[in-house]
Parts: sequence; C-alpha cells; structure tokens
Amino acid sequence: MNKIGVWLIGALGSISVTVMVGALLLRKGLCDSTGMVTATEPFEGLGLVPVDAMEFGGCDIRPGRLRDVVSGFLRNPSGIDPFLIGSIEGELAGIESFIYPGVALNCGESIELVAGCDMCVSCSAREEIARVTSGINEFKSVKGLDELVVVNLASTEPLIEMGHAHRDLDALERCIDSNGFESFRPSTIYAYAAIQSRSPYINFTPSTGALFPAMVELAERNGVPVMGNDGKTGETLVKSTLAPMFKYRNLEVLSWEGFNILGNMDGKVLDHPDNKRAKIQTKDSVLPRILGYSPHSQVHINYVPSLEDQKTAWDYIHFKGFLGAKMSLQFVWQGYDSLLAAPLVLDLVRLAELAHRRGEAGLMTHLASYFKDPLGVTEHRLSGQHEMLMDYVSLASQ
Amino acid sequence: MNKIGVWLIGALGSISVTVMVGALLLRKGLCDSTGMVTATEPFEGLGLVPVDAMEFGGCDIRPGRLRDVVSGFLRNPSGIDPFLIGSIEGELAGIESFIYPGVALNCGESIELVAGCDMCVSCSAREEIARVTSGINEFKSVKGLDELVVVNLASTEPLIEMGHAHRDLDALERCIDSNGFESFRPSTIYAYAAIQSRSPYINFTPSTGALFPAMVELAERNGVPVMGNDGKTGETLVKSTLAPMFKYRNLEVLSWEGFNILGNMDGKVLDHPDNKRAKIQTKDSVLPRILGYSPHSQVHINYVPSLEDQKTAWDYIHFKGFLGAKMSLQFVWQGYDSLLAAPLVLDLVRLAELAHRRGEAGLMTHLASYFKDPLGVTEHRLSGQHEMLMDYVSLASQ
Amino acid sequence: MNKIGVWLIGALGSISVTVMVGALLLRKGLCDSTGMVTATEPFEGLGLVPVDAMEFGGCDIRPGRLRDVVSGFLRNPSGIDPFLIGSIEGELAGIESFIYPGVALNCGESIELVAGCDMCVSCSAREEIARVTSGINEFKSVKGLDELVVVNLASTEPLIEMGHAHRDLDALERCIDSNGFESFRPSTIYAYAAIQSRSPYINFTPSTGALFPAMVELAERNGVPVMGNDGKTGETLVKSTLAPMFKYRNLEVLSWEGFNILGNMDGKVLDHPDNKRAKIQTKDSVLPRILGYSPHSQVHINYVPSLEDQKTAWDYIHFKGFLGAKMSLQFVWQGYDSLLAAPLVLDLVRLAELAHRRGEAGLMTHLASYFKDPLGVTEHRLSGQHEMLMDYVSLASQ
Amino acid sequence: MNKIGVWLIGALGSISVTVMVGALLLRKGLCDSTGMVTATEPFEGLGLVPVDAMEFGGCDIRPGRLRDVVSGFLRNPSGIDPFLIGSIEGELAGIESFIYPGVALNCGESIELVAGCDMCVSCSAREEIARVTSGINEFKSVKGLDELVVVNLASTEPLIEMGHAHRDLDALERCIDSNGFESFRPSTIYAYAAIQSRSPYINFTPSTGALFPAMVELAERNGVPVMGNDGKTGETLVKSTLAPMFKYRNLEVLSWEGFNILGNMDGKVLDHPDNKRAKIQTKDSVLPRILGYSPHSQVHINYVPSLEDQKTAWDYIHFKGFLGAKMSLQFVWQGYDSLLAAPLVLDLVRLAELAHRRGEAGLMTHLASYFKDPLGVTEHRLSGQHEMLMDYVSLASQ
Repeated sequence: MNKIGVWLIGALGSISVTVMVGALLLRKGLCDSTGMVTATEPFEGLGLVPVDAMEFGGCDIRPGRLRDVVSGFLRNPSGIDPFLIGSIEGELAGIESFIYPGVALNCGESIELVAGCDMCVSCSAREEIARVTSGINEFKSVKGLDELVVVNLASTEPLIEMGHAHRDLDALERCIDSNGFESFRPSTIYAYAAIQSRSPYINFTPSTGALFPAMVELAERNGVPVMGNDGKTGETLVKSTLAPMFKYRNLEVLSWEGFNILGNMDGKVLDHPDNKRAKIQTKDSVLPRILGYSPHSQVHINYVPSLEDQKTAWDYIHFKGFLGAKMSLQFVWQGYDSLLAAPLVLDLVRLAELAHRRGEAGLMTHLASYFKDPLGVTEHRLSGQHEMLMDYVSLASQ
Repeated sequence: MNKIGVWLIGALGSISVTVMVGALLLRKGLCDSTGMVTATEPFEGLGLVPVDAMEFGGCDIRPGRLRDVVSGFLRNPSGIDPFLIGSIEGELAGIESFIYPGVALNCGESIELVAGCDMCVSCSAREEIARVTSGINEFKSVKGLDELVVVNLASTEPLIEMGHAHRDLDALERCIDSNGFESFRPSTIYAYAAIQSRSPYINFTPSTGALFPAMVELAERNGVPVMGNDGKTGETLVKSTLAPMFKYRNLEVLSWEGFNILGNMDGKVLDHPDNKRAKIQTKDSVLPRILGYSPHSQVHINYVPSLEDQKTAWDYIHFKGFLGAKMSLQFVWQGYDSLLAAPLVLDLVRLAELAHRRGEAGLMTHLASYFKDPLGVTEHRLSGQHEMLMDYVSLASQ
Repeated sequence: MNKIGVWLIGALGSISVTVMVGALLLRKGLCDSTGMVTATEPFEGLGLVPVDAMEFGGCDIRPGRLRDVVSGFLRNPSGIDPFLIGSIEGELAGIESFIYPGVALNCGESIELVAGCDMCVSCSAREEIARVTSGINEFKSVKGLDELVVVNLASTEPLIEMGHAHRDLDALERCIDSNGFESFRPSTIYAYAAIQSRSPYINFTPSTGALFPAMVELAERNGVPVMGNDGKTGETLVKSTLAPMFKYRNLEVLSWEGFNILGNMDGKVLDHPDNKRAKIQTKDSVLPRILGYSPHSQVHINYVPSLEDQKTAWDYIHFKGFLGAKMSLQFVWQGYDSLLAAPLVLDLVRLAELAHRRGEAGLMTHLASYFKDPLGVTEHRLSGQHEMLMDYVSLASQ
Repeated sequence: MNKIGVWLIGALGSISVTVMVGALLLRKGLCDSTGMVTATEPFEGLGLVPVDAMEFGGCDIRPGRLRDVVSGFLRNPSGIDPFLIGSIEGELAGIESFIYPGVALNCGESIELVAGCDMCVSCSAREEIARVTSGINEFKSVKGLDELVVVNLASTEPLIEMGHAHRDLDALERCIDSNGFESFRPSTIYAYAAIQSRSPYINFTPSTGALFPAMVELAERNGVPVMGNDGKTGETLVKSTLAPMFKYRNLEVLSWEGFNILGNMDGKVLDHPDNKRAKIQTKDSVLPRILGYSPHSQVHINYVPSLEDQKTAWDYIHFKGFLGAKMSLQFVWQGYDSLLAAPLVLDLVRLAELAHRRGEAGLMTHLASYFKDPLGVTEHRLSGQHEMLMDYVSLASQ
C-alpha cells in the first residue's frame, strides 16, 4: 500500500486535530466511518486511498504542541470520547515533528494576535514559498511519500481585493517577484508552494487569497487538481438543501435570516469584521443561485465562548404563499463544527488523490457538494451537487 | 376556451373554500399565482387549462351554505385578505346550487358527528353510486362541461383492512353488488362513480378507501388517470426535502420525532385514533425509503383549537456524526394549511386534465412530488420527485 | 365624567395608531380589555380614568394623515380585525386636526430621513418649546380638558452624552437659553414643555434625552409624575421573567444571546447604529441586576421588512449546572409589537393620572414592571416589579 | 461532625448515581456546588449538614452492581466528566454493599419488566415493611448514623385509586394487616417503613402511593417531616416561571402544549400509559393554579432512546393579546435530567435533616419550589415558592 501525505495548514486547529484523531481511531477500528461520504457503497470500486495509508503533517502559525492542543480540546465537550485518545497517543506524538511554523505575512490583525509576534517579520515572498516547499519536501522524503495533498484548514483571512495579479498568471509571478504583499495572504503562499510541488490543494476555508483565476491557471499548467472554497458543514448545508423546496413549490422567500453562534478559534477570528466579511460572502451566493432572485437575507456570525466547538445556528425563513399569505420555517442546527468538517476533509484528500491519479487538473467541480461557494459551479442545490458527484463516480468506476 | 368542471368532495371544508376563493380571485386579477407550480415557466408550453376555465361544484356531508362557511372561515386568521371577498360574492353564490349532499356510509364515528344524522341512513351501494353520478352529470350538463376532475378533499377516513375485493376488480364489483359495506368507505363510492363517469380522480387525503389496486385497474380499463395519496403540504414536505441531506453526508439519523398541532376540522377529525392512524401511515413511509433504514420515528398530531388553520409542526432530528458524536437539527413549520394545499389542488386539476387529454390512464406517477405517499412510486426525495415532474413536462412539451 | 387628554408623540406611528384604535373600539364595546393590566380586579377600587374619557391628540415629524396611516397599517397583518375600523372612522377623523408637527432638531440622521426636510430648519430652543406648549394648550382648551398625559411613542433617538446640563436644573435652563442643541434631542423639548405645563410625562421609548436627573428634578419641583424608559413588551419581558429561575436554582448563566428581527418603522430606525445603541443599552441592564454577575450577552436587532409589525425574537441561553454540565434553554417570541405596547400605554395614562391626582411627583417607581430600564429602580425581576405595583395599588385603595 | 445517612430508593438509577458521584466529587473538591440551592449565601447560617457528612445506601429492584451502572451511565453523554470517576472508585465500591433488594409488589407491568422476576413473589405486607426496615437499620448501625433521610428516586408507579385506607390512618393499618395489596404500591411500603423508623421521607417521584393523607398523619404523629411530589427540574420549572408573566400582563393563554422527549429509564417506564398518567397528573395542576383558568393544555412524554439522559422539551404557548390578536411563545429546554435533579436531592436531604432537628413534622410546605405538585401548597409560581423558602430560611436563621 502506497502511503499518502496529508499536509494540514492550521495543523493545531480543532478541525485538523479532529482529522488526525479520527483517522488514527479509524485505523485502529475504534470508530466507524459515519460522516465520510467516500465510505458509502457507490465509492467502493474506485480504488480510493484508504485512511490507513495517510500520513499527517502540516504547519501552524500558533506556537504549541499537538499533544497539548489535543488534550485541551478534549477537556471541553467536543463530541469525541476522551477515553479513546489514550490508544493513539504514540501516533500523535509521531506527528509532532512534522508540524512546521506557518506563514503569517499580511494575515490581518485578528490572526496576528493568534500568531507569535516573531512570525510576522517579513522576508521575501519567494523565501516564504521556499520555506513552505522545503517543509513539504522534508516530510515527503522522511516518510517516503509519493503523493501529498495540501488542505487549508486555517482561520479565515480578511478579503483581498482582486486585481490584475489575480487574473493573469504572468502578472502573479511578477507580483511575487516584487513582494507585492498587499495582493497576497498566507493562503497565496501555501497554494503556490503546493501547486509548484505538484500537490493537489484543497481550500476548506472561505479565504479568497488562494484559488483565484491565475492560481487555477497555474494548477492547470502543472497538472494539479484543486478545489474550494469553504467546507459546507452546517447552516449553509441545510440552506442548500431546503431552499430548492421553495423554488419547487413556487413559494416566494421574502426573508432568510441566519444567526450563527460558536465559541472556537474560528468564532474568535470571525468576530473581527474583516474576517467575517470573507466568511459571509461565501455563504451569500447560495440563495440567489437557487431561487433565481435575492430575498432579504443577512447572515450573522457571533462569538459565544461558552459554546466552544458546538456551533448553533437559528435560521428564520419568511415566505409568501397562495393569496399572499405569509408563513415561516425556522430551524436550529446544533453540531460539533470540527466533527462535521473532519470526515469531509478525509473524503477530499481521497478524491483529490484519485483526480490527480486520473490526470485531472484545475478545478474539481464534481466536488461542489463539499463547498459553500464551489468554484466554477453554478449548481447550488445540494441534491444537484450530489448528482454531479455520483456522475463522476460512475464515470471513474468504468 | 373549453370549460372544465372541478368536483370537490368535502366542498364546504376549508381547503375547498380556499381553492374556490383563490381561483375566483385569480380570475379577477386580485391575487397572483404564488404557490401554483404549474404557473412557473416550464409549464408554459403545455396548453394547460387556465384557472379561468374552471367551474366548481361538489358535495359535502355537512349541512350548511357556502357563503356562511366562507364568512366563518374568514372571521379567523386564514391568511386570506377578507376585503377581497366582497368582489366574488356573486360567483360564490352561483356555486352554491352545485354542492350536493355527500356520502356518509361507514365513514366512521368521528366523521359521523360532523355529518347530519339522516345522512347515515343506508341505501344500497349501487344506489349511492348512482346518486353521486347523477349529481356529477347534472352539474356537467347544466354548465356545459366536456371534462370534469374529481378531487377528494374530505376528512381523513379510518383505515380499512385490505381484502380480496380491493385487489381484484371482479371481486370489487361483486362486493358492491352485495353491499359489503365493511369493505367500503365513502371515498370508495366517490372514486368508483368518478372513474365510471370517465373523470380523473385525485385523492388529496390519506384515506385508503379509494385508490386500492382494484380501483386503479378500473381506472386503467376506463382510460382514466388517477393519483394519490395525501397532499404533501407541510411537515412531510420539509421531511422529504431534508432527509436526503443526511443520506448524502453519511450521517446516521438516530431519531426523527414530529409533533404537529393544528386547530381546523382536519385536526378535529384526526383527534380520533382511527382517523389519526390513517394519516400517520402516509407520513411514515418517507424516512425508510429515503434513508434505507428506519430510525426511531414517531409522528404526533394533536388538536389545538386556538390555532385554527395555522398548522405548526416541531420536528426534532437527532443524528450521529463522525466519531459517534450526536448532534441535532430542529425545525418549526408554521403555515396556513389550506393556503398551502389549495394551489396544489389547482395544479393537480390542470395536470390531470392534461394527462386525460394525452390518453394516459391509471396512476400518474409523475405527480409524486404532490403526495405524502405517492402510489406506485419509490422515490421519496422531493428533488427526485421534482425531476420526475420536469421529465414529464419535457416529454409532454414535445 | 371628566375628560382626560392623551398627547402622543409620534402620533402617526404604529403604536399610537393602535392605542387610538384600541381605545375607540373598547369604547364601542367592539373589543375587550385583554392586555390592559389596569382592567384586572386589583385595580377596580382605584377610580382610574375610564378609557371612554380619553381624548387623543399629539404630534409627529412625519407628514401624512391619520386615516391613511391607519388604512396602510391595516393593509398588512397587524393582528387587528380590519372589519372593525369602519365603525370608528368618524372618531379617527375627529382626531386628525389635533395632530401637530413634531420637533426634529438634532434628532439624528436616521429619523431625519423619516421627517420632511423643512422640519429640520432651526429655530431657538425656547421657540420650539413654546410651539409644543401651544399645541398642547390649544388641544386642552378646544376639548375642555382638565388633565393631560404626554406619552413619547416616537422612534428611538441616538444616545446623547450626559453632561452637566443633564445633572443640574439651572445648567439645563442655561443650556436651553443658549440653544445648546448638542445636549438636546427632540424628547428633551417635549418633556420640558410637558412638565412646565404640569402634564405627567411617560417615556415609552429608549431615548435618554428626556428623563435625565435635571428633568426629574424639574418634575419634582412642578409636582408632576414622570416615568420611563422603554416599554417592556417582548424579549426583555420574557428575559426579566426567566432570568430569576437560574438565580433561584443556582444555575450559572454562561451566555444569553438575543436576536430580534422586526419590520416596522421602529425596526427601520433601529437599523441605524446610533439608534440601535440606545435601544440595546436599555435592554442590557436586566441580566446583571437579576443574576448578580454579567454573563456573555449580546442583544441584536435587525430590520427584516417582510415581518412588518410582527416582531420575532430568538434567545439562546447557555447555562452550567451540577458537575459543570452545560445545558440550554431557547425561546422564540412572536408578537405584534404595537398590540403588545398599546394596552400598556393606556395603563400608564390611567396610572399617571392617578399619581398626579394623589399629589405624587417625580419618578413613579411603582411602574417599574412596564419598563425595560425603570428609572430609579434596582428590582428587575418581573415578579418583584409586579409586587411593587400591587403594593402601590393596596396603598392607593385605602 | 455527625454523619447522616442518605437512603436512595432506586439506588441504581441515573439520578441516584449522579447524587452519589456528585457528592463524592464535591467532597474531594473536584467539582463545585453549582445547582445546589443550599450552597448559596442565604443558607449559610443554618448549620446545614455538609455534603461531606453524607453516607449513601439504598435499594433497587433491578439486579446489578453500582460500578457497572456508573460506567454504563458514563459511556453515554451524561454531562459528567468521565475522567473524574477514577478518583472516587473506592468510595463507590464501598457503597455497593449497602444497596439492598427493593420492593416490587404491585409495581405495575412496566416496572416489573425492569425488576428480576423472583422479586415479585409475594410475601405479606408486614414482612416487606420489616425487610425494608431491617436494611435501613443495618446500614445505620454499621455506619454509626444518628439520622437518615429516605429519598424516593425510583421509576414512576402507576396511579393508585384513593380509598378509605389512604385517608384514615387506622384504615391504613388494617389494610396493611390484611395485605390489601391493591391499595399499595412499593412506595407505600417504603414510606411506611421510613416514617416508622423516624426517618424523613422525600418523594422526588410523581408516584402517589406514599404521601396520601393517612401517611402524612402518621408522619405528624411520629414527628417526621416529609415532602413531595415529583422533583421540578425541567419543563415544569420553566412553566411555573413563565406562566405568571401572562397573568401579570393580562394576556390570555389560549393553549399551552408541551412535548417532552427523553431516553433514559425514566422515559422507558413513562412510555407505558399507566405510568405516564401519574406523571402527567403532577404536571397538570400548574397552569390552572397560576392563571386562574384552564387553557387548552396537553403534556406529552415520549421515549426517544438516542437522547439518553438528555431531556428535550418543546412548549408552544398560544396567547391572546389586545384587540384579540393571537401571538405565541415557544421554548426548547435541553438539559441532563439527572444532573438537574441530583443537586436538588442533596438540598432536600439537608433541609429535611434541618426540619427534623427543629422538631417539625408532616409536610414541609416551605420546600414547594422543589416539586411539580407540592403537597399542601396552592402557590405554584416559582417566585412565590422561592419566597416561601426564603421566609423559612430567615425564620430558621434567627
């Protein structure tokens, strides 16, 4: 069995921890694969990389050791049975040495607070890229890995204004050469390094600094499959499931108001208006695309520390029916943020490896169902997106 | 423009009233067609009968005049603007004389209370059939109608045990001849009369006394399209929309508990355990069909008079995710029962007429999305059912 | 029966309209007194002014006629039976001529948009006061009124910074003389004019420009009873009822997050950050006062036009119980804002008249239960506040 | 420090386990006293028995060992940090030998299933009483206890019809002599044995077989304080907090519908209609007593295994306001049943010991706030009940 590297950006964050813990527990038969779409029957014939074959590494801008993060995480309700951790402590310790310092340049105020100060000292963009690449290469060579997938699980970066450098590959290269930092976010550096190393890149965050058109062009040229943005795990998942009902029934959505409260690091970073804007933007495209019009709709995200990883969302949907009558549907979603995300990350690694093996490059639009704002895709209905995936699976199974 | 008859069983009930009021207001341009699926773009080229061409009649076991029912209905919050009624009073009065006494034989305790006592005097089954048929014929001839669609909007009947007479058409005929009342419900009489008169028959109720196999066979022989059971307007609509999400994400539904409260006649009749059982049965098939397994699931329906037509449902969905963590999704649905149903009734009349005109007979499975328990259909996902309808529309448009 | 004047600031707003419509319908026996606390048994022996004796007038900065406002208001779901309005059209027309132009000086951006531009032309503060006083006097003299109560039902003004002029009566007078507009809001003018005219003043809004210490001192000197701030009609009412439960049970509230959505003018004005801040401030004092500590708590108010007068609030309360376990209580409040407020306004008019008659002056602290932020009161539990009222009633009944 | 015995009926149930675990953790300083009312300031001067002084024993009809019950309980989400249990394993083992077989005679079908069959073999009533008494005495003597409080935490028994033997103490004695089993439930035996042994008896369950008038008379004669019925921990706690709001505001409650779902043994036993009736009866008295009238109100309890100890309740309150408008308040309560109950049990033991020491006998009505249906008390408002407790504390502190 060939081993595959999984390189997690934000490796000390709660989603990464859950990905690693989950994979290790699965390997030992201490949990089942509930929540992993690729564990279901239609994916059986595809020869997907087993979770057992995954080796974990990555980087983080935060100082700290994985073991402390894990035990801190488990001290709070996380949905994970803390008794199980004892059995994988050795494996977790083994990962420790492959967690490298992350990139913090131009990451925005809110994330800077999280990082140690010395992280933010500038060096040139090419040097930063080289530093990331060298970590990846070291990890691959020590572990003897043929293939590696990079997944961005870091905090949401502030929005970046799209300019020429984001639309044109040559302009991007020149911009990197001239250290045009105002056009970059850390995710730009990571994505560039990954794609140049011929590693598939998954943007599980809302950050828009990575998979802009010029970067996708680079991926296409290098034969590297990429996909994003922003893992669809909670409120937006429900939204993309429910909204078509109103369309199918010719009921007019008047207002769709969403209130999200959460208490993990994600919540803390999103409490900063710059970062929140990026997040809310990826959530915003769903309704107009599905309904064909834009109802009054605001998405609110608020940091409520006591909730920790248990995200709660209240959505109020006001709609108009026959003879102008107004009616409503409300829902309350209560889920462990990281536990919802982690199995999807394992799915995406397996499907990115498959795509790379099959010689695909550029956007993996068949993975639309995994993302809040799937790049290159106009289908926002979950059922339609699921069908896109099933069609791909059929094709790939032949 | 050829006129079409719409024969409503339970013509004095709140759905029927809303159907008639809505159609008359639409005709006068006093409301729009929100809530009618057939008013959307894909249906444009089908030459569907316009709402303007519909003439209304029907029957009810309750004594009473339509005008009193309408004004009583509007005195309570119904979602209908009561100011608009003045403009259609003449038309409503014109319908009055085409509302005939209904059939009450073996309708069960709860519905008998609603009917006047003299309704329940027995005559032979053939006589009852003839009486219904003669009302339909009179209506058609006075109004000069070529086509007529029968829609059952009456209260839910108690379940009937399926026997030989329900599976074999000859046995059914013999059973009618011998007045085997224990095998019939009023809906049996109505459906038989309708189909023998070559009129499409829609069962918008959960009552199982009409569209059993022998009756469907009769419809096929007579070239009559039929469909049922039980209009999908509220909690089940949401359920058939949401449940696939858990399937697509490989999240295991542990429990799905539904609590419905409502205060109209429907609620009152459903408060009787016999009638409730029939209702809950049509709601019960959805989850196992969509998920592929049967989670703990109970549907409760309770009569809360103060709510009147405003049905409220709370559903609590408990599910298991990655690493065994339990999470939940709750929703609260608040809608006007009759306003949700009425536009679908208009849709079904139009689509039944089309099917009849196109020479189709037996079950109209392409109408699955309209029903809680669509006969002859295993697809219970709303999106899949919607696609079935769209496929039919494409075919019929050619 | 002596008549009493009710002078409504914001007379064309939805609460005022509901107060007037409600009083007129009550007078005709077309509705009952549900929602009026003073209509219950304990208040019977107090000789309170009957609703029949109330004459309505007031002012508004918006242009427009009362009849148009009423009919516009009723065109949307307001909870009021529109059929009843016909019977009081004459009375409403009679009120029309006693609605005077309001004061708009330094009312803030958001309210200026509502007012006509010419309203904002400056004249001196004393002139504005005189203008208001002259309207009140005219109304009293034409109607032959002995007593008049002023109630502020206008939109929430932006917060004003408290300075010397707000704490010292002489400084206030000097500030008025010198047109120190930056220290005033329109509510300052109204309150000053009312108190100088020996009319009780009720601040049903969160605006802090009226009942600051210097103004209360003026009221005391003039023998005028006053009270505020901010009518307690919805979310805060529930909060002040529920919060003591956690205290009594020694359960620790970790977070109490409130999300309010509404669509009337109140909502529109509160959408402006300046005005929202004033509102949220009056809501904020409740928890710390009841619990004895300050849990994480944010109150959000958002404008959702389709809801109109139907305010909806979702509160999520996260609390810690035995052995550190976290649990939650959520509530959803759905009420017609103006219908909740209006009967309380009628109560307050009756109780202010009583207090004035009894020779009371300054803050009517026994009315604490009516206000979100009751001035001069530290008791925030609804039950305790209710007892304060009952104690007063016992005393006044002797 | 004098030690005090706590004798738990249903000692292997989840509330008992939580009481014992909680007390042991408190003693070790591994948790705080959140949720214990007697841990707050007003109780400081009363000389209440410290939790450290409590020794635990009891009985159960279920076979099984405490250690297995604890570890089974902790395997599921219980809100208890499972890491803490290791530190109290020795203490738990020490309790094991003081858990005696319980009484199962005439306990009803549903509880019989829980008990082992041989438990249900009949012996005479006096023999059963003697058996219970002997267990209590053995425990007291081995542990050297001066005082012991009996708390019933067993499953809800089916209702028993009240007859002469329940109203007259002599008749009760004769009935016991003649083995009139149809008039007894196990709780009758327990209460009789406790009171005869001069031990205070707390009925934390809805079972009506213990504290009927004749038994209270026995308690008075023996100088023993007793109290019940049914610990107020969740939905009813909220109900008795919220309902006064509607009364205070003169808002008419039209309907109050409650839906409870839970998955522990309590839920399983309550799934049987006989037992459910007893439970619902204790919940039913609250609204009429507080409001002064009986709105439409049904309380539903349903067994949903996946929820385990996490009880969830949805209440829908429909109310009428000014001008007849209908509005609503909904709440969702999500709490760990046993964690809510356990600290109250510790409170009640402390307060029963105090009452006994102070020479009080019969019903402890000052403990009304702890019970859904407080015997001998008409005050159902939580705030009023809390005041009764505070008044008692003031008196006892003198």
